Amino acid sequence: MTPLAPDPDVLRGLRLFAGLDAAALAETVRSAQTQRVEKGATIFSQGDPATLCHALIDGRVKIVQTGADGQQMVVRYIGPGEMFGTAAVFAGGVYPADALAVADCVAIHWSAAAMGVLMERHPRVAMNALDIVGRRLQEVQTRLREVSTERVERRVAHALLRLARQAGRRVEGGVEIDFPLSRQDIAEMTGTTLHTVSRILSGWEAQGIVEGGRQQVTIRRPHALVAIAEDLPRPLPPA
Amino acid sequence: MTPLAPDPDVLRGLRLFAGLDAAALAETVRSAQTQRVEKGATIFSQGDPATLCHALIDGRVKIVQTGADGQQMVVRYIGPGEMFGTAAVFAGGVYPADALAVADCVAIHWSAAAMGVLMERHPRVAMNALDIVGRRLQEVQTRLREVSTERVERRVAHALLRLARQAGRRVEGGVEIDFPLSRQDIAEMTGTTLHTVSRILSGWEAQGIVEGGRQQVTIRRPHALVAIAEDLPRPLPPA
Repeated sequence: MTPLAPDPDVLRGLRLFAGLDAAALAETVRSAQTQRVEKGATIFSQGDPATLCHALIDGRVKIVQTGADGQQMVVRYIGPGEMFGTAAVFAGGVYPADALAVADCVAIHWSAAAMGVLMERHPRVAMNALDIVGRRLQEVQTRLREVSTERVERRVAHALLRLARQAGRRVEGGVEIDFPLSRQDIAEMTGTTLHTVSRILSGWEAQGIVEGGRQQVTIRRPHALVAIAEDLPRPLPPA
Repeated sequence: MTPLAPDPDVLRGLRLFAGLDAAALAETVRSAQTQRVEKGATIFSQGDPATLCHALIDGRVKIVQTGADGQQMVVRYIGPGEMFGTAAVFAGGVYPADALAVADCVAIHWSAAAMGVLMERHPRVAMNALDIVGRRLQEVQTRLREVSTERVERRVAHALLRLARQAGRRVEGGVEIDFPLSRQDIAEMTGTTLHTVSRILSGWEAQGIVEGGRQQVTIRRPHALVAIAEDLPRPLPPA
């Protein structure tokens, strides 16, 4: 990890700093540090004291929680412009998960103390953070309901649609999820096994709904996936 | 729901207002409204615009989310001193769940606009809210991992231990969960069926680990429950 001087223009685009004027933005820049992180590196580890708030500028970060029994769950993928590790800093404890760079990344961080000062001086920053953490809470509650009550096929459909909204790139004939995503990753996002995910995706591939490579997923017929996720009558496959 | 004048002393005890001086606390009182809610009444409904931040002063509130397929999940139980409906207000949308009074309640609420003004004037309030919502996010992520990776017996043990920490009352020979709690409620907290919860609790009753009435659960041997939750070797039952 190489510290760099942060670029003021980059911070303007973060939701955390929405509504700040130029002087306030300049303050956020002065207390920030930029770092480059290579693909495969760990940015923080589960159980470490939560001392830094992070924002991702470029790349992709996977947040993974491991249980006492060694079983892993993908908490979420972080894309450019998103915060990570922030809730833990303000809940005042340890990071509840690992943050792993799944691509080469550029990230910015603030110490907990520096972020506290920014929030005291600019309550808008604290209120933006509350908006961000509040939306995540709602999203995780929805996932919890899905895992608790829905059959696995619907959960996998919901997970792929969420990733497409968050990190979808329009390509010819579909929407590609724009980062390396294995079937094991999907299993760890939806509370099921690799075997079950493989069976479901193979079925969907045969119906032309998705197309997958080893670490890559393209959604060919998003409407069909929505129908599965919402338990609607399925549209007919193309003739 | 009968509006009342709020009691200033009561607000002092809320974590949301920790660290405020007397003048700031007086401001929070001026913009608050107190209401009495009868057992069984709905405080807000899933899908309603999130216009009010609530704090519970007395009683017990159940937060329940319903999926498009009609299946329900208990998101959490709210006890005295806790906020509810707050994340939705700051995520700026609709309430993602119902809030139901499971006992006679006294609650306080602020309009979203009034709470926004309090946070702008007293950033400490926004930072306290961030701490509260951040801890809930961590708790829900942990539950999501449990539901995704643990077998159902461990999930039920974790759920009962969480309720005991949140609402446990020491009684002779154990810890009683201090509000009406049915086996169906436990099923909806842990993503399983009434049948499975009944089978597990009957087994634990036979081992003297818990004791249950129709709407009531007492934990007789908390250490045995921890051993199940954490998958440790079980202590022997008392001779």
